[in-house]
Amino acid sequence: MDPQEILSLCKRRGFLWPAYDIYGSVAGLYDYGPLGTAMKNSIENYWRQLYVLGEGFIEINCPVVAPEPVFKASGHVDAFSDMYVECNSCGETYRADHLAADKHPNPASLNEEQLGKVLKEIGAKCLECGGELTSPKRFNLMFKTSIGAGRGKVAYLRPETAQGMFVNFSQMYRYGREKLPFGAVQVGRAFRNEISPRQGLLRLREFNMMEAELFVHPEDKTWPKFKDVKGEVLPLVPNSGDSRSMSLDDAVNEKIIRNEVLAYFVWLTFKFAVDIGMDPKRLRLRQHIKTEMAHYASDCWDLEAELGYGWTELVGVADRGSYDVQAHIDHSGADLTAFERFEEPKEIEQEVVKPNFGALGPLFRGEAKMVSEALAGLSTEKVKGKKEVTVDLDGKKFVVPASCYEVVRKIEKVSGRKLVPHVIEPSYGVDRMLYAVLDHSYVKKEDYVTLRLKPIVAPIKAGVFPLMPRDGLDTIALEIFDELTRSGITAYYDDSGSIGRRYARMDEVGTPCCITVDYDSKDDHSVTIRDRDSTSQIRVKKDHVLEAVKALMDGVGFESLAKMK
Amino acid sequence: MDPQEILSLCKRRGFLWPAYDIYGSVAGLYDYGPLGTAMKNSIENYWRQLYVLGEGFIEINCPVVAPEPVFKASGHVDAFSDMYVECNSCGETYRADHLAADKHPNPASLNEEQLGKVLKEIGAKCLECGGELTSPKRFNLMFKTSIGAGRGKVAYLRPETAQGMFVNFSQMYRYGREKLPFGAVQVGRAFRNEISPRQGLLRLREFNMMEAELFVHPEDKTWPKFKDVKGEVLPLVPNSGDSRSMSLDDAVNEKIIRNEVLAYFVWLTFKFAVDIGMDPKRLRLRQHIKTEMAHYASDCWDLEAELGYGWTELVGVADRGSYDVQAHIDHSGADLTAFERFEEPKEIEQEVVKPNFGALGPLFRGEAKMVSEALAGLSTEKVKGKKEVTVDLDGKKFVVPASCYEVVRKIEKVSGRKLVPHVIEPSYGVDRMLYAVLDHSYVKKEDYVTLRLKPIVAPIKAGVFPLMPRDGLDTIALEIFDELTRSGITAYYDDSGSIGRRYARMDEVGTPCCITVDYDSKDDHSVTIRDRDSTSQIRVKKDHVLEAVKALMDGVGFESLAKMK
Repeated sequence: MDPQEILSLCKRRGFLWPAYDIYGSVAGLYDYGPLGTAMKNSIENYWRQLYVLGEGFIEINCPVVAPEPVFKASGHVDAFSDMYVECNSCGETYRADHLAADKHPNPASLNEEQLGKVLKEIGAKCLECGGELTSPKRFNLMFKTSIGAGRGKVAYLRPETAQGMFVNFSQMYRYGREKLPFGAVQVGRAFRNEISPRQGLLRLREFNMMEAELFVHPEDKTWPKFKDVKGEVLPLVPNSGDSRSMSLDDAVNEKIIRNEVLAYFVWLTFKFAVDIGMDPKRLRLRQHIKTEMAHYASDCWDLEAELGYGWTELVGVADRGSYDVQAHIDHSGADLTAFERFEEPKEIEQEVVKPNFGALGPLFRGEAKMVSEALAGLSTEKVKGKKEVTVDLDGKKFVVPASCYEVVRKIEKVSGRKLVPHVIEPSYGVDRMLYAVLDHSYVKKEDYVTLRLKPIVAPIKAGVFPLMPRDGLDTIALEIFDELTRSGITAYYDDSGSIGRRYARMDEVGTPCCITVDYDSKDDHSVTIRDRDSTSQIRVKKDHVLEAVKALMDGVGFESLAKMK
Repeated sequence: MDPQEILSLCKRRGFLWPAYDIYGSVAGLYDYGPLGTAMKNSIENYWRQLYVLGEGFIEINCPVVAPEPVFKASGHVDAFSDMYVECNSCGETYRADHLAADKHPNPASLNEEQLGKVLKEIGAKCLECGGELTSPKRFNLMFKTSIGAGRGKVAYLRPETAQGMFVNFSQMYRYGREKLPFGAVQVGRAFRNEISPRQGLLRLREFNMMEAELFVHPEDKTWPKFKDVKGEVLPLVPNSGDSRSMSLDDAVNEKIIRNEVLAYFVWLTFKFAVDIGMDPKRLRLRQHIKTEMAHYASDCWDLEAELGYGWTELVGVADRGSYDVQAHIDHSGADLTAFERFEEPKEIEQEVVKPNFGALGPLFRGEAKMVSEALAGLSTEKVKGKKEVTVDLDGKKFVVPASCYEVVRKIEKVSGRKLVPHVIEPSYGVDRMLYAVLDHSYVKKEDYVTLRLKPIVAPIKAGVFPLMPRDGLDTIALEIFDELTRSGITAYYDDSGSIGRRYARMDEVGTPCCITVDYDSKDDHSVTIRDRDSTSQIRVKKDHVLEAVKALMDGVGFESLAKMK
């Protein structure tokens, strides 16, 4: 469907507004209006239902402002960037690689100098004013800020919610009483200071994510619930080029999807998209090609939807190995490991540091015992071949000469081993999913627009109309409206204009049903319920309206409802 | 209750963690762990239930990044600041007024120079290292950033969610089909780059707000639902000093609370606090004293709770007059007004600009009609006493000499008038409310801690335990756990340790009830439900567990439940 048409409906009817419109708006920033917010909340809540209640993942909620070391570790400070050029005359900025898109097979792979050469060769000029452009410069895509007064601490707005879960691995592991696997999710804002955002909701500078991080044993990527879904068939586009619909079981057996747990979450992602109203025929799961995949990822699948913009990535489901947790271990020095207890303790010969009390005593006197314990805890790597070693006890430093310890081989009973967990990450873009649902729900017949939203995401569940705003019809309609509202069902009361126009207003924003109170209602205590998609109507006792609307929301089809009555 | 004790429980059990702990953490930034997130979600959802479903407010959702003009208009760029001093030796920063707190009655009222003098007189030094301090400097408390590459646009992280609703007044007014009053809410993050945050959840650099903006007719501050609650008695602390419990009706009649609509939302705020579990005896509503109130606000009431920190502001409910909307009209030039249609058109004599066709025609030829229409639309203020006036038509400027128009008095029928709406703003701090609920729920007997959380905010609704993790007891318990979970009820399955210890774990995190499967359960198909607060137990058929837990969540007391069985 034409994106302009959808965005125009969104603005007109209160799904979305360009943010800060009265100040000229800002590219890449949108407000969710009342209908968009309700829809976004529904999508997020249903996602929680699947991941938190259904899969038992825990939900956490971290700040969006984070100090620099977090993103130094994650790699974003060094590598999360695009190149831009700026017009010397009007100051307009452009993604440098985009300007060379038609002239080079992969301009993003070039460095500044190479890309500058290409732009010179093709004579790139400012698209606004024809002015000269600067040479390409790297621009980090994180919004930068500073925490605190005075010198302050460099900080960034998170470009993803994931890091909050990686840095909290140990807290969550303890919360879950030290078991693998366990999953965590976060729903919230993320930021990407795009150089020149286009494409409505697809490239936002501030966007909404739902991310899950499943921490698993590095050598165990089986998944108990896989057996319940292994017969399910998904439209796969493997990087071998051999696209076809295939059962999960076959995909795993033929090593097309790397492992069971990844396959399970690929399936759950597809199910989620269909449940919230996307058209399964316009969805596919595309495997990243080798050069596209992060170097540490062992496998990655994108859920893509066919939209007015073409095939568009909505979700990435990746096996990220131990990369993220290991990066934070390396940068912070924290022990972000899980402990695997062996079934039986094992005898293992290993090198240990053995303190020499005879030498320690005279040197450190009252503190000798503490120093000795600290020495025994050191890894042998730290002392081998050195003349002395420095140990730090609560901030006090002790220089210990090599005569005070030796490295010995020792047979020890060990009860288990430390593991750096692997991470399976399903990462969802909320705004893109919402847009895809709108695109797949948009039906236009002549000039009549219906959004065929599923009740689960429809921002208004029912329209309530008195045929006329008088003669007591309004009183009855308001009673119904109040009853629905009190039960937590968002309804919309409308008493103005012809009934046809009122239906049209509700159809255009995807309201699944409308309830009309007419003059007969006063006598027969019944009202009409109209189905959005079939436009067929049934007559229902006023006292049964709530129940009927609830049934429709629970997925009972309108035809079945008609039979029940 | 001692804040340290509550924060320690929060950290240990997964309500809250200091953010970025592995990198040394950052003052004023916290993560919500799984229990904190669940509780925060519950508080926000219940608030939506009251404001969106109950009061019919619309919910919108704006970006947290906003360009400078928004906060230039709101006054934050110029006036949202504190003074700080910095240690010349160690770089530590301090709120300058805090350092003078004991030596001056109101140090925040001083300017930089005056406060610098006071600090010199009292010989203020760095509290960390004793070093010399710089003189006080102003520090804007908004986090600053920049949008886009190259020159970029100065931007800030919003210090409140309110501005997003003010700048969208016209969109929302149109969405609501141009009626006053209407209300809008926003739930989301806000930021305040505190100089030296203390006090756990009370002073955060990144926090969560729930704000409502009710736009009303400036001359009509009645409220239909006021009559339903006017008998309710609230603990008021008016700025006259005469504190007492008083009915809303009396408070409005005696002009203690300025108007009905403000009184209604003061009441709703109190109700909300009690509903989520605060102790009404430790709540009060304090009116701002004149010097404390924003200069434009005509009345403002804070909901305060008595906490371990002392009386603490949780919510502000203010009548902000037309200040906010007018500020954006003045800065943006946009027409953020409502239109009041008179019951009958009125004849009003007014000055208008009357174009002179005879003069316009020869000068502007084909464009004369457009220029004429533009002239007729001008306010007379713009042309009076000028030799010429410039009109702008789609970007093209026309200089029109005074001979082309005149100012005349004319009797016109007008159908209505433009109004700048007044705003009633209830503004809630989510983190503070959550903390206050924890404080008021914390009960310690000897060393046994129980959080007496109401079911509505309890992060876990039910613990499910097999007496032993074998002999089929675990199977039965897991069936119950699954049944609860499928019904959307967050349960916690625990099969390790003594039953007493398992109860204690659940009591400490506020789980209202626990369900135990024992050896009898296999024969009598019944299980034990234990009430957290009374520790009394009832025996219930396994098939009735879901129903019983739902009843407890709906507020049916445990005793009533016992009688029902």
